[in-house]
Order: sequence, then structure tokens, then C-alpha cells
Amino acid sequence: MTDFETGCGKLGENERIDDLGRRGYRILQNKKKFCFGIDATFLAWFAEVRKGEKVIDLCSGTGIVPILMDARNDCGDYTGVEIDPEMVALANRSAKLNGIEDHVRFIEGDLKAADTGLGELSASGLGKLSRIRLGKSVADVVTVNPPYMPTENGLQNPDPFKAAARHEVFCNLDDVIRVSASLLKSGGRFYMVHRPVRLPSILEKMKAYGLSPARICYIHPFADKEATMVLVSGVRGGKTLLKTEAPVIIYQEPGVYTERVIHIYQD
Amino acid sequence: MTDFETGCGKLGENERIDDLGRRGYRILQNKKKFCFGIDATFLAWFAEVRKGEKVIDLCSGTGIVPILMDARNDCGDYTGVEIDPEMVALANRSAKLNGIEDHVRFIEGDLKAADTGLGELSASGLGKLSRIRLGKSVADVVTVNPPYMPTENGLQNPDPFKAAARHEVFCNLDDVIRVSASLLKSGGRFYMVHRPVRLPSILEKMKAYGLSPARICYIHPFADKEATMVLVSGVRGGKTLLKTEAPVIIYQEPGVYTERVIHIYQD
Repeated sequence: MTDFETGCGKLGENERIDDLGRRGYRILQNKKKFCFGIDATFLAWFAEVRKGEKVIDLCSGTGIVPILMDARNDCGDYTGVEIDPEMVALANRSAKLNGIEDHVRFIEGDLKAADTGLGELSASGLGKLSRIRLGKSVADVVTVNPPYMPTENGLQNPDPFKAAARHEVFCNLDDVIRVSASLLKSGGRFYMVHRPVRLPSILEKMKAYGLSPARICYIHPFADKEATMVLVSGVRGGKTLLKTEAPVIIYQEPGVYTERVIHIYQD
Repeated sequence: MTDFETGCGKLGENERIDDLGRRGYRILQNKKKFCFGIDATFLAWFAEVRKGEKVIDLCSGTGIVPILMDARNDCGDYTGVEIDPEMVALANRSAKLNGIEDHVRFIEGDLKAADTGLGELSASGLGKLSRIRLGKSVADVVTVNPPYMPTENGLQNPDPFKAAARHEVFCNLDDVIRVSASLLKSGGRFYMVHRPVRLPSILEKMKAYGLSPARICYIHPFADKEATMVLVSGVRGGKTLLKTEAPVIIYQEPGVYTERVIHIYQD
């Protein structure tokens, strides 16, 4: 494949381009790195963004959440923060591939420093970083698909960047929610996908950092099975009435998506 | 109807006997008082009781939860606590009507005093109260279908006993969870039905009083509608892994119960 074809430089070894099935948007992934899951698709569907809003995505990985949100909503200005420089470069190439690099960019940095300015965040060399300056109370929306597992749980990948996609290596739930709240303007909205088992801690941290829970939506693999994911939203400094939305059931039978999930992918 | 027919004394004005559709169990209700709702049916289905276990039901009302649990499980020893003396008398007559008064009894009292012994709890004159002595760490299981609404919300019935069925007149969420935890033995199980909007507070109070969340199950009126009830269980002093169970959908179309709900009523 030529540069002309990919629009984002030569495809590296183990790289592939996936079609996102929405307005022709595509994404670069590296088969040896963390590839996005259905969680990111649900988060991009759940999160609301309005015209002119500044969105910060934490734990960006491939960049899938901002890219899908841009494909869905065709509005908003997105800055993704990711600690793995190789993933940052890949995500920025995906933005370029879609011709959206003027309003979707990814920067390398430790999210724990994201609300104290760009101090530890180094520009990746792509994207117009001047549009949004990270810091306290700058974002209308924060989205995050963080690592789900505490470091003490489960086998951990020896590569810290790979481990960090699943385990709380570089940041834990407290960091994620504290920094998200700090980045948000008053009235700004927080959207996260996580494991239902962590919901009590999520709600506890949201309260501690001034995010009022607004919407909860559970994802169940089948109608008669436990939830495996939960989408949670909150409002910074707001007083909300929490809604527990209709659950999303992924499969109507093994291998066959429900109509709702087909809509989530396509609408 | 004669005393012989009802087995529980003469039916008073506005009283009726309803069949519970399970092993011939029936319940007395007073049309002018609070009659039980589907919430109680779900709670009795959700709560687990094993042979020989001591169950305390708080905010007993008509006594529906212990009576339905006894009908379902045919095991356990139940003591219901209810603040309205007329409801206590009615519930004890229902126990007698079913011939289960040796292991299902209701006592009048303020639940806030339930864990400090029978001090403020006066025997209602029916049932063998000596079987269980209320107090700290006496129960294997606590069930509760408390009033859902803070006193500041919504129109309140001028009759405090009627108001108390819906509003936190005599007890609030903190009282309910604090006393439930106190009544439970270590490892004992707590089961509550409530409104999903209160879930953050429920989990916060459970943590504060040493109840580890174990199971959550949401009830939605229709598959595409918000949850209107939530069932929550917890273990006293335990370290549990919270499961969010398959949701219960009440209606498959207006007026037509789903198969799952028919099973919940009949199994």
C-alpha cells in the first residue's frame, strides 16, 4: 500500500487499517499492541458532545473514542492523552488518515499531570495542539476508557505499556476520576466505561471529586447474563437526578447482535 | 364470610383477602391502607433464605415479604417489624390465616430501636415472639422494602402512617441500612428494594455500615425504558465481588408480562 493510499504514511509492520463503518472513517491499529474493543464503541455512543465543545479523552490508546465520536457527531474538538508514545503516533496518523487532524489530536503524557497544564505532556508532532490547553476547568466533556483491573488482580503483561491497557499500572481509578473532574468546567460532563464490579468505588470517587452521577447504562452479553460493562456519566458540580437507562444486550443469540447493538454501530 | 372461612377472625370493613398464587397462601389487605406492590414480590424472589435461618423484615407493612418468602422457600423463621399497630395486627392475622404463625410473626416498633433489643418494640399479642430476640447480630437475613422518598420530595399523605409507606417519615435510608447491618450476624445477608436514583446513597451507606455489596438487579417496566426499581444485596463484614445480574423486564408489551416475570410470580 502506498502513502497515497493510506494518507498517513507507510503502514508499519503489524499495522492494519480498519474501517469503522461510519462516514468512511478508518483507524490504524497495530496487531502487536492493544486493539480497541466494543467498550470503546459503547463509550463513543454513550457520550454526548455538542457543537463547539472541547473534549478531552484520557487513556486514548488507538484514539478510537475521539475518532468514533467525531464520526458520529461531526462536531467537537478533541484532545486525547495517552502515555505510550507509539500509540500517540499511531492515533495521530489515524486522525490524518481521516483528514480530521485539525480538530482531533493526541498528545503523549501521564494523565495524572493533565490538569496541571502541559508540563509533562509533550507534543507528538502532529495536530494543532494550540487549540486546547490542558489544565483545570478547560473541558466541556471528558471521556475515558481506563484500565479496568487493579494491579494486584490477574496476570499482568511484562511490557508496562501493554499491561497499562488492562491494569492500573500508570493510573488508578482515583487518578482517573480526580483528574477528569479537575479538567472539566463547572457543568462539564464526564463519561466513562468500566466494569460493573467497580461501580461502588466509581460512585464513591465521583462524589469525592464533585461529579454528580447522571446516567448509568449496563451492557449485558445476553439478556439472561450478568452485566460485563457499565457506562457512567456525571456532571461537574451539578445536582443531577440519576437515571439508570435501558440495558444494552449485545447478542440475541451466540454470534448474532441484537438490533439495538446494530443501531449503536450504525446510527 | 365466617371466622371459620377466613381463619383469622372476622374481615373488617375495607378488608379483603388476596390469593398469592403460591401453595395456597393468602394475605389480608385493607383497601384504605397501603397495599403491597410488585416491589415486594421482587424482593421476596431476590432474597435467599436457607433452612433454619432467622430473617428480620423491616418496614413490614402488610407482612407480604415474609409471607411470600415463606411460601416460596418453606424454610426460615421470620420476624417482621412495623411501626403502624393496625398493620401489625393485620399481618399477624395473615400469618394465622396461612397457619404459619409459629414461624412468621410481626411486632410493632420503631425500626430505629430494633437493634437495641425489644425495648421499644411491643408484642402485638399474636405469634410466638420468644423464638427470636431482636438485637445486634441476631439475624442471618434482613429484608426491607423501605419508603423510597425523602420527606422533602413530593406530596405527603397527612396521615403519618400512610405517609410512612412512601416517605421517610419515621426512618430514612441511613436508619434502614445502619439498623439492618447492626441486626445482622457477621456474614449475614441484607436484601433491599429501592429506587435506582438512590443507588449512590445506598452503596455509600452500605460501605459506611460494613455491608459489602454482593448483587444488584434492576427492574425495568419495558426493555427500552429506564429502571424503576433496584434490588440490592450485601454481606455483613464480607468481602464480596459485586454482580450486576440480568435485568428483569416487567412487560413484553403493555399489559403482558414477560415470561421471566411470570416465572418470578409462579416459581
